[in-house]
Amino acid sequence: MSPKIDRFDALATDFAPGQEVRQSEGNIRDLMRGDLIPGRLVDFSHGDVDAFTPTPGSFELFSEAVAAGGRQAYTEYRGSADIRAELADKLARFTGAPVSADEGTILTPGTQGALFLAVAAVVNQGDKIAIVQPDYFANRKLVQFFGGEVVPVAMDYMASQTQAGLDLTQLRAAFEGGAKVFLFSNPNNPTGAVYSESEIKRIAALAQEFGVTIIADQLYSRLRYEGETYTHMRASGLPDDQVITIMGPSKTESLSGYRLGVAFGSPRIVTRMEKLQAIVSLRAPGYNQAVLRSWFSEPAGWMEERIRLHQAIRDDLMNIFRQSGFACRKPQAGSYLFPTLPSLSLGLHDFVRLLRHQANVIVTPGTEFGPHAHSVRLNFSQDHAATTDAVHRLVEMAHRYRIQ
Amino acid sequence: MSPKIDRFDALATDFAPGQEVRQSEGNIRDLMRGDLIPGRLVDFSHGDVDAFTPTPGSFELFSEAVAAGGRQAYTEYRGSADIRAELADKLARFTGAPVSADEGTILTPGTQGALFLAVAAVVNQGDKIAIVQPDYFANRKLVQFFGGEVVPVAMDYMASQTQAGLDLTQLRAAFEGGAKVFLFSNPNNPTGAVYSESEIKRIAALAQEFGVTIIADQLYSRLRYEGETYTHMRASGLPDDQVITIMGPSKTESLSGYRLGVAFGSPRIVTRMEKLQAIVSLRAPGYNQAVLRSWFSEPAGWMEERIRLHQAIRDDLMNIFRQSGFACRKPQAGSYLFPTLPSLSLGLHDFVRLLRHQANVIVTPGTEFGPHAHSVRLNFSQDHAATTDAVHRLVEMAHRYRIQ
Repeated sequence: MSPKIDRFDALATDFAPGQEVRQSEGNIRDLMRGDLIPGRLVDFSHGDVDAFTPTPGSFELFSEAVAAGGRQAYTEYRGSADIRAELADKLARFTGAPVSADEGTILTPGTQGALFLAVAAVVNQGDKIAIVQPDYFANRKLVQFFGGEVVPVAMDYMASQTQAGLDLTQLRAAFEGGAKVFLFSNPNNPTGAVYSESEIKRIAALAQEFGVTIIADQLYSRLRYEGETYTHMRASGLPDDQVITIMGPSKTESLSGYRLGVAFGSPRIVTRMEKLQAIVSLRAPGYNQAVLRSWFSEPAGWMEERIRLHQAIRDDLMNIFRQSGFACRKPQAGSYLFPTLPSLSLGLHDFVRLLRHQANVIVTPGTEFGPHAHSVRLNFSQDHAATTDAVHRLVEMAHRYRIQ
Repeated sequence: MSPKIDRFDALATDFAPGQEVRQSEGNIRDLMRGDLIPGRLVDFSHGDVDAFTPTPGSFELFSEAVAAGGRQAYTEYRGSADIRAELADKLARFTGAPVSADEGTILTPGTQGALFLAVAAVVNQGDKIAIVQPDYFANRKLVQFFGGEVVPVAMDYMASQTQAGLDLTQLRAAFEGGAKVFLFSNPNNPTGAVYSESEIKRIAALAQEFGVTIIADQLYSRLRYEGETYTHMRASGLPDDQVITIMGPSKTESLSGYRLGVAFGSPRIVTRMEKLQAIVSLRAPGYNQAVLRSWFSEPAGWMEERIRLHQAIRDDLMNIFRQSGFACRKPQAGSYLFPTLPSLSLGLHDFVRLLRHQANVIVTPGTEFGPHAHSVRLNFSQDHAATTDAVHRLVEMAHRYRIQ
């Protein structure tokens, strides 16, 4: 037997978004330069569902589900058959490729649940998995938990506004080196970069050449800004069984409190995901599943207005960062910004703690997303005015702690 | 590297409760003896939340949580701090030993979620885990999924009505042989046996002697019938850090549609569970968590009445089985019956399929719980009259297909 490695070593949550309340204040007072910078607390670690409220009608759908009783409380482990049928149609239209309601769709507790099951379904001990840097913080942890080996692929997200910037030479090298799975988010979390059509087509061609399975996390693919185009991985010509797509209504639709996700595509992978879901959580909560009926059926104009409001915040924050000399890619989609900070005289984690205690601003350190010790991630799905104020405080803090 | 074993081979869900709708009818017509036996469908694979409805006030608590907005939608991964505080008090009173709200409590998506995280937190590749036969079907699958080795410990549940019947000599042998974890349900699923005080004390003494960690699944420990006593594992004198207890309001309280579970006890295990939950599902749904406020705070007399109604069904079904000559332990708690069928002229899985298609009765085959090919499990938390009718049909079916 090989020496035991504690799978939990890779799972540190100390700096994970949402866990800030568990951090101790430590020696923060000794590090502090200058006074507190007052202002309303803004928690950029996740979106504010009080500022952007859940889809109209979602609570009513939940209430109807409770009234429906047992029929809705207990569903197949992969989720209610009639809800899957509705969703499969909508997701096929949205992504431009057929979806099998019965064989190729599974409802999960949040998109995190879908991601966990998908990675578990395709990663075995010792497998190599290609992961983008930067990308969603859990990707790396999931692969490591299942004993896989992360093969990093760099994305130069500052190089161009029309390409995500994935290093396709590195991707090919990863596949040549034996990586059997490529896991990536599009729009990219944390930068908001969207992969161009030519990038998606090139990834598909490489995946086909090397028989690689693709997990495409498209959580933010509905929140696309004016003038941006989007190419769905699953409609890029790859065989259906080689791609599993993950989405959910937690972000743009602010339904995070219901914890709902969907994975769709490869029946082979969905079958394995359901088997595992049977011992992980049995199923997404029965009543909650009904809230998915509101998805892609929002009132006319509602989504457009939501996008417009986010775009206005994005543009204001981009202006603040630009005027302050912080490098920052302009997100094409989603509600994340990933600015590069000036060189600081202390470590990133200390700065993030100071930011919280001294300036009432919570951000996620860039190190959660890869080797990005000079960046922080902001989810700007927040109250507009509070957000611009908080970003001014962030800039002021960075100036206070920069190398003089 | 060791040869690759597909972890999913152990995860067959073909006969798992709730998945019957995915089974094909197959050659059922060729096997059928006699006509259909008409009657209202009773699905004994799980309780009927239309017959026994959710705790009064649970939906109102959910509604308040939605109205509370972001504060309730996003909680720590281990669950809302104030809900954990309320629960820790109630669970300490119920189990007779202190519970730390901050360090020793985690809310999960269903008790299945708690069980998955607890097993993952303590089982490593190659570890030996003692598991009772019969016991909850997922226990074995969970251990196998994480590469552990199941060491079965027999329970002679028909030997006595005052002891569960665990073979303590086998348990000692399992611990002597290196088993580092003991995972068991109490009340036992599928038999409804409750471990006596002397059995619990003996298990605790053995666990202490051998440094074994105990996962105690007490999902049904509130639904105890008249005259029955119950001893909580965690109050048996074992060090707090050696026991993790799992409970939830899915069964007696019929809140299964909200998928809520709680694990409490060892801070060491809870810390690992939370780290893993961060990549499995992030957290139990934020709004749903609020429904836990109804738990152990039901209206006066409500729980007593619920127990009385279940006891009446239990007694009627026990009479039917006794009069028909089927051996069956009288459950001391919970809503499961695990009768032994007469010797059949066909396999158990075929009989179970016939039962569904010919007699409108869904049961779970005993093979899900261990090597019990002559038993089926019934969850009798159902409409009383429909249930006795369905059990008469089950008896008639067993007579039709018995060896003549």
